[in-house]
Amino acid sequence: MESNHLEGIVFFGLENIRYFCGFTGSDGVFVLTGDKAYFLTDSRYWTQADDEVAESEIVHYKKKLDGIVTLLLGQKRRRIGFDAPALPFSFYRALAERLGKEVDLVPLEEEIRNLRAVKDPQELAAIQRAIDIASKAFEHALGTVREGSLENDIAQEMEFSMKRNGAENLGFDIIVASGTRSALPHGKASTKRVEKGDFILFDYGCRAFGYHSDETITVVIGEPSAEQRKIYQIVKDAHDKAVETARSGIPLNRVDAAARDHIRNSGYGDCFGHGLGHGVGLAVHEDPTVNADNRGIVQEGMVFTIEPGIYIPDWGGVRIEDMVRVTAQGAEVMTYLSKELRVL
Amino acid sequence: MESNHLEGIVFFGLENIRYFCGFTGSDGVFVLTGDKAYFLTDSRYWTQADDEVAESEIVHYKKKLDGIVTLLLGQKRRRIGFDAPALPFSFYRALAERLGKEVDLVPLEEEIRNLRAVKDPQELAAIQRAIDIASKAFEHALGTVREGSLENDIAQEMEFSMKRNGAENLGFDIIVASGTRSALPHGKASTKRVEKGDFILFDYGCRAFGYHSDETITVVIGEPSAEQRKIYQIVKDAHDKAVETARSGIPLNRVDAAARDHIRNSGYGDCFGHGLGHGVGLAVHEDPTVNADNRGIVQEGMVFTIEPGIYIPDWGGVRIEDMVRVTAQGAEVMTYLSKELRVL
Repeated sequence: MESNHLEGIVFFGLENIRYFCGFTGSDGVFVLTGDKAYFLTDSRYWTQADDEVAESEIVHYKKKLDGIVTLLLGQKRRRIGFDAPALPFSFYRALAERLGKEVDLVPLEEEIRNLRAVKDPQELAAIQRAIDIASKAFEHALGTVREGSLENDIAQEMEFSMKRNGAENLGFDIIVASGTRSALPHGKASTKRVEKGDFILFDYGCRAFGYHSDETITVVIGEPSAEQRKIYQIVKDAHDKAVETARSGIPLNRVDAAARDHIRNSGYGDCFGHGLGHGVGLAVHEDPTVNADNRGIVQEGMVFTIEPGIYIPDWGGVRIEDMVRVTAQGAEVMTYLSKELRVL
Repeated sequence: MESNHLEGIVFFGLENIRYFCGFTGSDGVFVLTGDKAYFLTDSRYWTQADDEVAESEIVHYKKKLDGIVTLLLGQKRRRIGFDAPALPFSFYRALAERLGKEVDLVPLEEEIRNLRAVKDPQELAAIQRAIDIASKAFEHALGTVREGSLENDIAQEMEFSMKRNGAENLGFDIIVASGTRSALPHGKASTKRVEKGDFILFDYGCRAFGYHSDETITVVIGEPSAEQRKIYQIVKDAHDKAVETARSGIPLNRVDAAARDHIRNSGYGDCFGHGLGHGVGLAVHEDPTVNADNRGIVQEGMVFTIEPGIYIPDWGGVRIEDMVRVTAQGAEVMTYLSKELRVL
């Protein structure tokens, strides 16, 4: 099934819709045909669509299914692709039934995988804005941390700061994971209090102009042990090697390998269970995936995270995460806060 | 396709998963077979699953697809249902391909529509907690409103208050829509300033213990005009009639009709374009849908909103929304803030 045989594509994913026509609301459909673009939505969003949607014909519907069917059958399109990861099976089934034999619905997945992976200057500027807001919020929240502070309170300080400074939203639940909880790759803030000797792992990000930031900083409260310094340095070196390796034209899994090999060679291969990184943009997790399996090619303009970690159950963990953008020269770190170990 | 011929059901929707086994994280699968329940997840959530999941066997996987396939093929299940609204088409396709002819995948939609519609006492208590937090936040935010206040600032005051008082999150973007913007059914807070003579429509809710609240209050800043009082009273009477009508055993569309008929008979039928209400629980919008089309039957223990409105373009709008729970005696209003017109 090659997409160049398609007579059109229907996009259901909100990020894809925003990417193509600028609509920022939470319900609608975008249809690309050979020569035209259409944005379809219901009465809740007609005013907003008039304000936001450019270079697409705006089509009103009462029921989404009716709107799509009327457009496609009216144009006698016979072979139509759709963004399969974004369409619930139940809607697919209803749509296929209504379109009947007139239209072949072709699921697209690999074909549209890297659709939004390369960013243009306007997108990069929005991402940088999100990074600026999040960086300021991190420094503010870090300044409030004392022995005995609640993880939840620290996270809330950070969230409120982001929002006061113009973030549209968080990108994801803020992770503030201290002590043994720092060994949880997904340890969102809890009612634990931070204690002397704890690693505190902060993983945070926000959204501005629709685009996300994502960054992880691990600090220590109280004088770090030799073991803590050692683990931190291994992760830091793994991170640095991956940043140095990343450049256009090489396979994505070679970037992952640069960090992973270093951690394995240092004896902690079993303690780094997740992929090295992921693309960031209109979605906080999007293509490209940077892991051991993805042989796709790094391209100039891609933005992705580099986030190696070592997690030791019942002891603690370190993750260091930056966002990089791929330039003609290599990879430029966009998240500018220092990744040297901070001791509170 | 009757569900009693199924040999099992796979649930992908996070609310369904939480409902059945208590897991509150953001990735996993719940499988019910004739005699057993399984919760499947990856290493990010193994610790959390151990803490949260009750009465289900916890199964670890590296890749979700492998985990499901191994379980179903290992048990030689041949006919398996799934929650079709929650499953992306692309995952369905991959799963169907891997299961091959061994397993029939049966999409469930109508069959599971009212799965979570009737609430038990623990669920009602969580909803009431969310309502308490949101009510307090509304009163706090309302106290900050002056002529010239920014809608965005008012919404942020409300959000921060909810979160300081224990809300896990907002239920949805807070709507603060003033002046002509109150005619937008979906007018989330903007950079508009509130002015004398404006209606201000607040639609807000939060989440506590996984459960949501949802309430709308419309106030006036400055002395209301006769027209404003008239429109407000029509909506209020429509609301009251629907609350009085709601009771177990009648069709849901009769509750809708009680409000809709009154608005139409008052001459504003064209200005009430949306359904009367929706169920609220683990999802902020869930079954039952309360509109003109749903002939399903009201059942004791259901919780849903009653939210008639009149929206007049370029003039303004009023919506009044309460959550009710259906009791043996009728419908009890859970959202206790007064719905008499408040004049700021």
